[in-house]
Amino acid sequence: MPQTIDRVSIEALRPDPVKVIAQAAYLELSEFEALSRAASAAPDLRAKEALSNAAGLVLAKHRALTAELRRRGVEPAEAMAPYREPIDAFAVMVAGADWYEALASIYLTSGLLDDFFSRLAAGIEDGGAKLSAVIAGENGAEAIVDMLADAMAENPKLGSRLAVWGRRLVGDTLLVARSALPQTQPNAEHRIEPVLTELMAEHTRRMDRLGLTA
Amino acid sequence: MPQTIDRVSIEALRPDPVKVIAQAAYLELSEFEALSRAASAAPDLRAKEALSNAAGLVLAKHRALTAELRRRGVEPAEAMAPYREPIDAFAVMVAGADWYEALASIYLTSGLLDDFFSRLAAGIEDGGAKLSAVIAGENGAEAIVDMLADAMAENPKLGSRLAVWGRRLVGDTLLVARSALPQTQPNAEHRIEPVLTELMAEHTRRMDRLGLTA
Repeated sequence: MPQTIDRVSIEALRPDPVKVIAQAAYLELSEFEALSRAASAAPDLRAKEALSNAAGLVLAKHRALTAELRRRGVEPAEAMAPYREPIDAFAVMVAGADWYEALASIYLTSGLLDDFFSRLAAGIEDGGAKLSAVIAGENGAEAIVDMLADAMAENPKLGSRLAVWGRRLVGDTLLVARSALPQTQPNAEHRIEPVLTELMAEHTRRMDRLGLTA
Repeated sequence: MPQTIDRVSIEALRPDPVKVIAQAAYLELSEFEALSRAASAAPDLRAKEALSNAAGLVLAKHRALTAELRRRGVEPAEAMAPYREPIDAFAVMVAGADWYEALASIYLTSGLLDDFFSRLAAGIEDGGAKLSAVIAGENGAEAIVDMLADAMAENPKLGSRLAVWGRRLVGDTLLVARSALPQTQPNAEHRIEPVLTELMAEHTRRMDRLGLTA
């Protein structure tokens, strides 16, 4: 059961709980913004409804995480501040050239990062399981997959464009994940490696769900 | 007590419940989008937090209204479709030249339109009081007033610019309100007049809260 071993590996790194929660909180806020932009740009009202619903789900995750920061006596705006610049820069890099690339990006990057941060949060001693569940919670991905599948069925060229785009996203997304890990611990690289492998395997599964080759 | 008389006047117009709910639902969605844009463009994380919170509150209003449409056997996307083009055009007109104008616009236009639609919804026979309360519900206005007050305290020129902007918004906003009223009923204009007067009085109170002359 490699999954169990990997989870132990990453949890055992025991990063600072406040840092993990704050970075995850800002990532959810950034995903909320991307979903809101996609909702605004939606070509029809059904898509707008689905995307604004997804935005609401992701905003609820963000708010649960900022509530947890407050519970720990930390002001969310202060705790999230160090992550704003790098995550904003990441959001620009993965924004995509059009609405479809934006949707694929939301699905693939938030899939990977929610996956990663929910594993990392599981290692937090006080309330880690609950935080992990919040981060892994419902984010409207199902509706996005359906919308992209419909669009690719109508326009086969879109599929090959999104396949390239999906592959390009991975590197930058993994960098965000790595930035959350303490670099100073001995054997950190050794512990992280199998986790990255598993994150990549999950990314490949999401690409498969879109009918794309990773 | 003029307020009682006005409420009766507008309720007595008895517009089509589905039309009122659908138009109000699309307006809340449009306000959600404006708040999300303002959250994305916020100069600091505290403002971003306050505005994304407001966006969540307004999205909840939108979702309560679309749930009500479904309860009445109506598909929200279909019911809202006729309002998309005029409300999108309105949103562009009142978007504002910068972040401060956008905030003032959100506060003033949603204040007026929530006020109007909550009065109109009160006249719906089945569940009107509840719908009215949903539309009049919390929308984060307090935080927006505070942000604008802080900004104007730092930059007195901003106040005169926002005063002009606030006056310019009213005409277009009242047109959206009027478009929701059946035009064909006898005495419609006569009934609407005192309501418009009261909506203007409330607008003036909101301008006052911002320290601006209406």
